[in-house]
Amino acid sequence: MSTSSILSYRGKNAPASPIRKLEPLARAAAERGTKIYHLNIGQPDIPTPASFLQKARLEPGNVLSYSPSVGLYPYRKALVDYYTGIGMPVAERDILVTTGGSEALLFVLMALCDPGDEVITPEPYYPNYGTFSMMAGATLRTLPTRIEDGFRLPPPADFAAAITPRTRAILLCNPSNPTGTLYSRDALTAVVALAKQHGLMLICDEVYRDFVYAGTPLSILSIPGAADVAIIIDSLSKRFSACGARLGCIISQRHELIDAVTRFAMARLSPPTLGQLGGLGALEDPGPFVSSMIAEFRRRRDVLMEELAKLPGVLAPEAQGAFYLMTRLPVDSSERFCAWLLNDFSHQGETVMLAPGPGFYQTPGSGQDEVRIAYVLGEAPLRRAVQLLGHALQAYPGRK
Amino acid sequence: MSTSSILSYRGKNAPASPIRKLEPLARAAAERGTKIYHLNIGQPDIPTPASFLQKARLEPGNVLSYSPSVGLYPYRKALVDYYTGIGMPVAERDILVTTGGSEALLFVLMALCDPGDEVITPEPYYPNYGTFSMMAGATLRTLPTRIEDGFRLPPPADFAAAITPRTRAILLCNPSNPTGTLYSRDALTAVVALAKQHGLMLICDEVYRDFVYAGTPLSILSIPGAADVAIIIDSLSKRFSACGARLGCIISQRHELIDAVTRFAMARLSPPTLGQLGGLGALEDPGPFVSSMIAEFRRRRDVLMEELAKLPGVLAPEAQGAFYLMTRLPVDSSERFCAWLLNDFSHQGETVMLAPGPGFYQTPGSGQDEVRIAYVLGEAPLRRAVQLLGHALQAYPGRK
Repeated sequence: MSTSSILSYRGKNAPASPIRKLEPLARAAAERGTKIYHLNIGQPDIPTPASFLQKARLEPGNVLSYSPSVGLYPYRKALVDYYTGIGMPVAERDILVTTGGSEALLFVLMALCDPGDEVITPEPYYPNYGTFSMMAGATLRTLPTRIEDGFRLPPPADFAAAITPRTRAILLCNPSNPTGTLYSRDALTAVVALAKQHGLMLICDEVYRDFVYAGTPLSILSIPGAADVAIIIDSLSKRFSACGARLGCIISQRHELIDAVTRFAMARLSPPTLGQLGGLGALEDPGPFVSSMIAEFRRRRDVLMEELAKLPGVLAPEAQGAFYLMTRLPVDSSERFCAWLLNDFSHQGETVMLAPGPGFYQTPGSGQDEVRIAYVLGEAPLRRAVQLLGHALQAYPGRK
Repeated sequence: MSTSSILSYRGKNAPASPIRKLEPLARAAAERGTKIYHLNIGQPDIPTPASFLQKARLEPGNVLSYSPSVGLYPYRKALVDYYTGIGMPVAERDILVTTGGSEALLFVLMALCDPGDEVITPEPYYPNYGTFSMMAGATLRTLPTRIEDGFRLPPPADFAAAITPRTRAILLCNPSNPTGTLYSRDALTAVVALAKQHGLMLICDEVYRDFVYAGTPLSILSIPGAADVAIIIDSLSKRFSACGARLGCIISQRHELIDAVTRFAMARLSPPTLGQLGGLGALEDPGPFVSSMIAEFRRRRDVLMEELAKLPGVLAPEAQGAFYLMTRLPVDSSERFCAWLLNDFSHQGETVMLAPGPGFYQTPGSGQDEVRIAYVLGEAPLRRAVQLLGHALQAYPGRK
């Protein structure tokens, strides 16, 4: 018996998260007494709505039971009302409630892709798209986008050139994690037409749909004809600052897809029940919470842009949506720089943690001078964090 | 573009749950005013521990944030203390906290199996093993067991005969869902030796470990040498009547396996946080709750056996563990009988819902006269439910 052979290809090769892999250095820095501003991970500090936390409670004597595999019926109804209220045409039969947007994505990729099938996504991309693709046996093909263009969506000809007989879907995140780009209506319309022309599904990760600071939120379902090809990945995590609830959904009018993911969902029995109870609370009157949170992120966005503009050699595109910004720094290697920030740098006992760029690229050598900044802190700590970045760039021995 | 081609092999072929597929008939019967005793699904009526529900609460002002991908550190520590306390040698590095036992199983199968690889499991089996295997691209090969033998584990020679060059693991559920069989120490020892001899991993689903009414709970880790090959699937769902918490774990001393599933876990970010908070409460002093719950299920088991013994033509093996019993009924087709119970039968406005046997078999034609009974009701309703089954068997036109 060989002790090195128990793992599958997926088991051997699924990558560790590039966002989380610097954690050991961060823990060591914290143990040395350094205060770390976490701009590396999309965990906002916004308190979860009180209505969520109150509704999530079960009194003693209750049974914390499975929900239906497709989600609690009142919660599904509340989702329909929510989407209808924001102008998205969604019916109950279009929805599967999932354990976070993560499970939604894995189920959709598994439902669409056989081993060796391909999915096209713009690069840089959310790294877990790669891991979920591998878990589904699919290959992620990336289309380069450029920081100089604000990472705007490639033209249809670029997508068309990447399509092969194995291509099953195009995968977009709008607004984009990690770039902060909001795709234009025209660009989305062109991708919808392309998907329809080539018989591809269009998976749209819209978990940051409301987080828009330039223009208005834009669901793929508002593009005429998109319903034939669109599969939306959505989540309560960011919209209601409830990342730990693990509550998302899949939306599609292609009911054979909903039927397939529902059969996957039956196997895992139930999404988290406490999260759904809380979600019922959050959806009772979602507008005020979401508006005030977006206003808060808009101020943070402004602070970020204002402070980054003061740093020589830094190229920051306009942060249009989500709460991330892919930013170019004058450094030899963002991997080395981000590790150096934790290992070797501090200013008045403080440092800042960023996510190195290469983890968001599949193309070797790309993103070496980029970092993803998650502006998930309040104005004062965010300003301080970016100023710390400025001090660090001055002190960094590998500055370009 | 073909509208019939968007689904993968998995998407097309993953089966609907045989336990849940009669739900539409049940809903119609309920709408006609029939009271249904649910013996079809493993959702007990035991109140969740108050300590769980209290600890799961977050006060307003808190952020319901992601936990670490591997689980909250205090919860992992509490799990280690729990396992140590019941005599299982488990260290923190042996554990990955998962979103229910379901995710644990999917991750393990994905980490071990490439497309076309095989996993051996005794039949009848928990149907979701088949769905998860398909999602992982693996083939489930089943070894027949017999109701006349109390579904005891097949001898090693039978396992050996089923092993092919593609076999990666043996999968056991002990005590067994759906049969209620508790595997003996000798039988487990033989399977461990076989797994080691053939370089296979041994996946043990122990979510019902405490639910034992004949003998004592027996973890695979108590078999000498098992740690080299054992991968335990565990869950809080049944042990703390918290199915909706969606909280499980993977335990193995094969750290390359834990490393692989941890990388999968990073992609899905976090198990449910509220469930883990509750789990911390449940693990503070688990003994009294579990003991009293097992005592309750032992009474139910006795009621079940006592009432089934009164029904002519019914073959019920000894219910040794879990809270299921695969039972032979004198009917032409358990599929038809279970549907008839919901569509055509009622006694004083009441009927009983059971899970038809064939869904627990892969071998065509098997289980046609068997049903799975989940004895998840209190003594009085359980007695009434089995008596209803007796009335139904007398009235059923397809009685053998």
